[in-house]
Amino acid sequence: MHALPPLDQPVQWLILALDGIGIFVFAISGAALALRERLDLFGVLLMAFVTALFGGILRDILLGATPPETLTSWHNAAIALSGGVFTIAAGGWIGRLDKPVRLFDAIGLGLFTAAGAAKALDFGVHPLMAPAVGMVVGIGGGILRDMLVTRTPLVLQAEIYAVAALAGGFAVVGCDVLGLPAQPSMLAGALLCLTLRLLALYRGWTLWHPPRPPGL
Amino acid sequence: MHALPPLDQPVQWLILALDGIGIFVFAISGAALALRERLDLFGVLLMAFVTALFGGILRDILLGATPPETLTSWHNAAIALSGGVFTIAAGGWIGRLDKPVRLFDAIGLGLFTAAGAAKALDFGVHPLMAPAVGMVVGIGGGILRDMLVTRTPLVLQAEIYAVAALAGGFAVVGCDVLGLPAQPSMLAGALLCLTLRLLALYRGWTLWHPPRPPGL
Amino acid sequence: MHALPPLDQPVQWLILALDGIGIFVFAISGAALALRERLDLFGVLLMAFVTALFGGILRDILLGATPPETLTSWHNAAIALSGGVFTIAAGGWIGRLDKPVRLFDAIGLGLFTAAGAAKALDFGVHPLMAPAVGMVVGIGGGILRDMLVTRTPLVLQAEIYAVAALAGGFAVVGCDVLGLPAQPSMLAGALLCLTLRLLALYRGWTLWHPPRPPGL
Repeated sequence: MHALPPLDQPVQWLILALDGIGIFVFAISGAALALRERLDLFGVLLMAFVTALFGGILRDILLGATPPETLTSWHNAAIALSGGVFTIAAGGWIGRLDKPVRLFDAIGLGLFTAAGAAKALDFGVHPLMAPAVGMVVGIGGGILRDMLVTRTPLVLQAEIYAVAALAGGFAVVGCDVLGLPAQPSMLAGALLCLTLRLLALYRGWTLWHPPRPPGL
Repeated sequence: MHALPPLDQPVQWLILALDGIGIFVFAISGAALALRERLDLFGVLLMAFVTALFGGILRDILLGATPPETLTSWHNAAIALSGGVFTIAAGGWIGRLDKPVRLFDAIGLGLFTAAGAAKALDFGVHPLMAPAVGMVVGIGGGILRDMLVTRTPLVLQAEIYAVAALAGGFAVVGCDVLGLPAQPSMLAGALLCLTLRLLALYRGWTLWHPPRPPGL
Repeated sequence: MHALPPLDQPVQWLILALDGIGIFVFAISGAALALRERLDLFGVLLMAFVTALFGGILRDILLGATPPETLTSWHNAAIALSGGVFTIAAGGWIGRLDKPVRLFDAIGLGLFTAAGAAKALDFGVHPLMAPAVGMVVGIGGGILRDMLVTRTPLVLQAEIYAVAALAGGFAVVGCDVLGLPAQPSMLAGALLCLTLRLLALYRGWTLWHPPRPPGL
């Protein structure tokens, strides 16, 4: 999260608000898994933090933008920990809130990915690789979340998730190549990712599982 | 580990000695788990190295202090590998040495954490986030140790360990805010962490395990 | 992978070609494990990418050479993804191609390690620690491959693999200390690693498994 924008820039405020909601929702998914695994209070909050913020930390490490944004201000951590506390207090609700949680998770995925791809371009990553950096921001936290409880990461098995992120990242790069300014490029990428993710969810799209070759 | 201090600075020598002992003891905990998992000689030494030094390497990556201290001198590696060899040679003893090992582990945790938090402040990390960096130095090695043998990290499940580190980190930051010089601040933080950790051990304190909400 | 060398430098072209083959073969080993675990198309390609390129990414993060080489051009990613697609299309062959795959894997290990150790020396890593950085390039991808599917990394359990890498790294450093130029030093290190690895394979050499001490 950056320094707060001037009050007369509603688009920036909107992005900031959605980014915060994305962090909050990602934190819920980490804390919910931690509760299911019966971790203690610290474990639950750490899982919330890691799931919400590890992708961005990894992005900044890859780009050499150290110390990472998450460590140079307290806002991101505060939002993630709030998400963890909320999950402990209101976990019973969350099952019933399934649909909004999935919606905000998709919004977070889109925003994290688009902002990650744009930042990667700024730091000299090759345009064909910038979408991969964006994707890492979107899925890195969920991968570490699953590895911490020794579960094969969901994103390697489940519905179209990382692929939606990749597509959003390529949209950001495409807009950049066409000379569009950063903000509309990021919005276009985030919207494409969000649309694909929601379509995948509600139509039950999945990726092809290649067959296991005999003898392998 | 830094360049050796002048001979007339006993406090620095003390910190250096305790730091070395901390590395040695952390290495023992990695090697002991590797022996239990029947890894080969290389696996045992790698687990000793990683458990003792990964936290500091991660700290330096997060702060952009690359290459990490552990790679620019050979001292840390030598101490960690000695800890691994000692565990192979004298593993039978170590069960009986349970209490001193836990004591030195707590000392190592305190020192690693306090020095990590102080270095994070130096590198521009936000004061509210510096304790988290300190904690990463203290617990990062143990987390990777457990993940390498696909075990949910102990620190997510067990007694008050990471929380003692966090508290020590906040003490370092508090002293820094009050204008104290770095060395007494670090000692205060390390002592607070050590005290909490030992109290938790000998009184059997544990953290609250939040209940699993129904339906989650 | 670097900018392409001038056409009149056959040794550089040879190294480049072998490096590409190493990436391709490492990618096959990641994709093959992913197929066995029944991951989807994205999971298979991600495992190919990670196994082939994570070691080099980790090297560049450790050395502060960010963004990593793999992200500033598209060549490495293209080779790794080709290896993944090849595994899906021709997996039945790969079982029968066991011997050439092991040979190229050993060549890749040697080249990755030697180039990694040389780059570490360039970036100020201590000569005694540079072989460890080289080894990380050689084995890092395989370790993450196994951790992603929650398997204790093979390299911690199996035949002489990491140790061959370490030996190759020390050869690079030794040649450097003796004042040899970078290219013959790297070739010597790669050849030593390759030789040790092939000997270990064909003679069935394994490392000593230290006994589990009673009471540990």
